[in-house]
Amino acid sequence: MRILVIGASGTIGRPLCEELGKRHEVIAAGRRGPDAVVDIRSAESIRALYEAVGPVDACICVAESGALDRFETLTEDELLENMRGKFFGQINLVLIGQSFLKDRGSFTLTSGIFADEAWPGVTGGAVISGGLHSFVLSAAIELKRGLRINAVSPTIVADSVEAYAHLFPGMEPVEMDRLIGTYVNCVEGSETGRIHRLYRPAGSADTGFPLG
Amino acid sequence: MRILVIGASGTIGRPLCEELGKRHEVIAAGRRGPDAVVDIRSAESIRALYEAVGPVDACICVAESGALDRFETLTEDELLENMRGKFFGQINLVLIGQSFLKDRGSFTLTSGIFADEAWPGVTGGAVISGGLHSFVLSAAIELKRGLRINAVSPTIVADSVEAYAHLFPGMEPVEMDRLIGTYVNCVEGSETGRIHRLYRPAGSADTGFPLG
Repeated sequence: MRILVIGASGTIGRPLCEELGKRHEVIAAGRRGPDAVVDIRSAESIRALYEAVGPVDACICVAESGALDRFETLTEDELLENMRGKFFGQINLVLIGQSFLKDRGSFTLTSGIFADEAWPGVTGGAVISGGLHSFVLSAAIELKRGLRINAVSPTIVADSVEAYAHLFPGMEPVEMDRLIGTYVNCVEGSETGRIHRLYRPAGSADTGFPLG
Repeated sequence: MRILVIGASGTIGRPLCEELGKRHEVIAAGRRGPDAVVDIRSAESIRALYEAVGPVDACICVAESGALDRFETLTEDELLENMRGKFFGQINLVLIGQSFLKDRGSFTLTSGIFADEAWPGVTGGAVISGGLHSFVLSAAIELKRGLRINAVSPTIVADSVEAYAHLFPGMEPVEMDRLIGTYVNCVEGSETGRIHRLYRPAGSADTGFPLG
């Protein structure tokens, strides 16, 4: 397969490209390339990317993350700015990409634990990921030509625990190998409309999410 | 209690105000009043509303609904426009209102079934409601002074079946009485961070939502 990976130089992107590269042609994209340059906050940049790389079998996005926020002073404009990359950017990869991907191609987006689990200072991350989950369910029934779409919703990655664990004490990490395997499953498998939640159920009566 | 109801003249708003009015002082607000005028698409209008009505014990929003969309031609700008009222408007009611509500006051927002269940032509409705659910979880742990927040996520209302059932054939309606009772529960009860899903579980492995 020809696989476009956006955010290829990031914490998840690097090992993901390495694993996919064993069996597939990987186009490593991001703000600084290396194979193709894109800023997913811009619809024009996304369209130019798809036109430049030509037909692909899969588009995986592991770029961008939500910024921290302060709820007491949070404004609509700050929230919207936070949503530009990870929310609207990933949605644009699908809305624009739906006419560029090969038949039966797949999109794999990245959301996160804050969709389902509340932590202080991440209201933006929550609405980004919660909105993306519902988008994936919706897009899965809307996409034509056998196109598929799934999301990977990680908790903190074991490789990042040292850098971020002080912000989210007690958050159980996911091993990088398992995370990478989940992206591979989305691309090489056949499912669509699946949210891969890589964390334990919250346990409240409202959220009975199974693990994985 | 003094209860501010936004969208007071709508399908849900009218019977809700009637029920609440039996025990409480209701301030019926909306684009055409009657007690107070507000356009929740505007942050300035929301701030002016809170300043005009003075301290309230509860703010309930049953205003606005998502527009239909066509996935194949949907753009970021259309999606954002669709999100202005029901998503950013309701979030602004909380972000701005958090300094206006009385201690231990409550916000009750309205989301909808498309957060969890995919139907054609409602990608906007999906991301609006999915994002709102995660916002409510997050806001519940962020709000100070004992302020509470919950969401009511209705399916199609029995009273609207005649008008909308052709768009969503087979969608099981919720009775208006049960819906109104759920809003009353949010205001008069003590829970926070609860998403009241008024529809059956989707049954997929990914969404084990209990009824109610």
